[in-house]
Amino acid sequence: MEKTLTAEWIREQADRMVPGRVRILDQTLLPEQRVFIETDDLETVWTAIRTLQVRGAPAIGIAAAMGVAAALQRNAADSGAALAEEAGRLADRLATARPTAVNLFWALDRMKKTAADNAGMAPDALKERLAAEAQAIRDEDAACCRAIGEFGAALLQDGDTILTHCNAGGLATSELGTALAPVYVAREQGKTVRVFADETRPLLQGARLTAWELSQAGIDVTLICDNTAAQVMKEGRIRAVLVGADRIAANGDVANKIGTYGVAVLARAHGIPFYVLAPTSTFDPQASDGDAIPIEERSADEVIRGFGRLTAPENVNVYSPAFDVTPAELIAAIVCEKGVLRPDYRESIRNALG
Amino acid sequence: MEKTLTAEWIREQADRMVPGRVRILDQTLLPEQRVFIETDDLETVWTAIRTLQVRGAPAIGIAAAMGVAAALQRNAADSGAALAEEAGRLADRLATARPTAVNLFWALDRMKKTAADNAGMAPDALKERLAAEAQAIRDEDAACCRAIGEFGAALLQDGDTILTHCNAGGLATSELGTALAPVYVAREQGKTVRVFADETRPLLQGARLTAWELSQAGIDVTLICDNTAAQVMKEGRIRAVLVGADRIAANGDVANKIGTYGVAVLARAHGIPFYVLAPTSTFDPQASDGDAIPIEERSADEVIRGFGRLTAPENVNVYSPAFDVTPAELIAAIVCEKGVLRPDYRESIRNALG
Repeated sequence: MEKTLTAEWIREQADRMVPGRVRILDQTLLPEQRVFIETDDLETVWTAIRTLQVRGAPAIGIAAAMGVAAALQRNAADSGAALAEEAGRLADRLATARPTAVNLFWALDRMKKTAADNAGMAPDALKERLAAEAQAIRDEDAACCRAIGEFGAALLQDGDTILTHCNAGGLATSELGTALAPVYVAREQGKTVRVFADETRPLLQGARLTAWELSQAGIDVTLICDNTAAQVMKEGRIRAVLVGADRIAANGDVANKIGTYGVAVLARAHGIPFYVLAPTSTFDPQASDGDAIPIEERSADEVIRGFGRLTAPENVNVYSPAFDVTPAELIAAIVCEKGVLRPDYRESIRNALG
Repeated sequence: MEKTLTAEWIREQADRMVPGRVRILDQTLLPEQRVFIETDDLETVWTAIRTLQVRGAPAIGIAAAMGVAAALQRNAADSGAALAEEAGRLADRLATARPTAVNLFWALDRMKKTAADNAGMAPDALKERLAAEAQAIRDEDAACCRAIGEFGAALLQDGDTILTHCNAGGLATSELGTALAPVYVAREQGKTVRVFADETRPLLQGARLTAWELSQAGIDVTLICDNTAAQVMKEGRIRAVLVGADRIAANGDVANKIGTYGVAVLARAHGIPFYVLAPTSTFDPQASDGDAIPIEERSADEVIRGFGRLTAPENVNVYSPAFDVTPAELIAAIVCEKGVLRPDYRESIRNALG
């Protein structure tokens, strides 16, 4: 895999395996400060996931898998079976950090299964095996992002401008991102693709992360308030909408950052194709449709004092779901590492997973 | 006109005539501080309009008219003609403060015309005449809001929940507001009407002003991020959308706070009626349609450091139009002090103005 400047830069930023430790770029401090959290403490990883120091469905899965592996390195269990049992406990604990992104459960289940399947090993060998599994989850994600980028880039033409919501870039994954991967790959292919980034209230991942990540990579990016997306579409500036996903139901309904559903409705009204880009680890065949996906509600404080000062009456009612569900019928295609899935999604998703 | 607690409260907050001075509640400091600017200095009024210390199309018109009247009180002109000429200069200066809200020009033209028509008066008498004209603009606005509230309340039923964008309440006018007037009037009539308020980035007028104003008045209000409006509609919680206007073209196209157009598209997609509420002073028969309305662009700083800290890369491109235009075909009715206008708007608006 050829490493471009972009990919190198993102690799530098991304979570990676340090022997026996997790390394997390604290995304709550971006863009003002670039601080890495290096830890082998499971509660520190739990807090990092809960408080969005690491966020983005694939990155959460990677951090969780690495967290389990790292926390076990110092474990004094005298048998593989005892270590495997502890791995299960740690995984169950991390699974409580956030409810919506399915990659978290997917990665933790994979770590639990690896531990259980290898409980006959000596403790030190099992520790190594689990560290390797976490590393494999990370490396497979990088390959998935690359494949998504290549399938997605084929949907874009030189000179296109896309709109994205939240951050599904390198910062949300291991390397190239999901929604932004086609932009990076298109650039490698010599195409110019420009980006409008919704700022994405309340936590401003579009402003703090997407605009920052793309600027750093030298991609032409324009930041807009969320409520400006409709106007930019009306002005004819947007050729496609590209977003990531936190969970995709069996019928193609997509849970993603709050506001995604509204962007999808607006894209439909303006005749703009709306694409979802995500690895198959984001698919949840257990969820028959979007109604089966639990939606996390976040605290009022993120809305009324997100900028460091009170910006609303102190005791006002706030409704702040972290995600919404975009119905499959608004989605032109779901791009995963297996290819470009089209409706009927129940069938194309089953084939991709099969 | 019966004064309710609500109306009394709003009257207390609103701009009012102090003999020889303008009194402006500084809306940039709400909800944390309640500071009144009392001045007879025209440049202070210009800055107050420019920097949104006073905002809302009707309130801008009132503040401008009062600003001209107040600034003339100390004028030493020895003839009515000289004073009238100075009134024209002051009005022309204030007209440069903001480009989109037509009430500003409407109110200033009325002051200029009053000055010109009465240029034969002695200076002191003309000063009194102009102060009375400014007061009349304010009092007529209060009556307009009351009428809009009554016509609008007839569109609402007990138990309804409405969505609003930005602030078109008491703070944007003299008393009851425009978009919020039906909520206040419905309450006087014993109906319960609940409100979802879009926070309205970048300047958060929904969070800082609408949520505050409604909370103070004891109305049930829930604050949401702009990008959550679609989800709230999808959940079936919204019975109608009520917004104000900064300028209404002859064909019924409506310029209002950025994000209004997107809300209108979403309302249409969810089968929710979208109502615009504004006095006829907001109508601009010179603008044949929305394309003729100039849209103010605001500074990147309001988006990337609106709240005291940098929330995006320092030099990122930002696109921040202050307003957008909602096409007439998305609007179920325009409620003005003359009644409820329905399509064809070119005809119903002409009749209302006629």
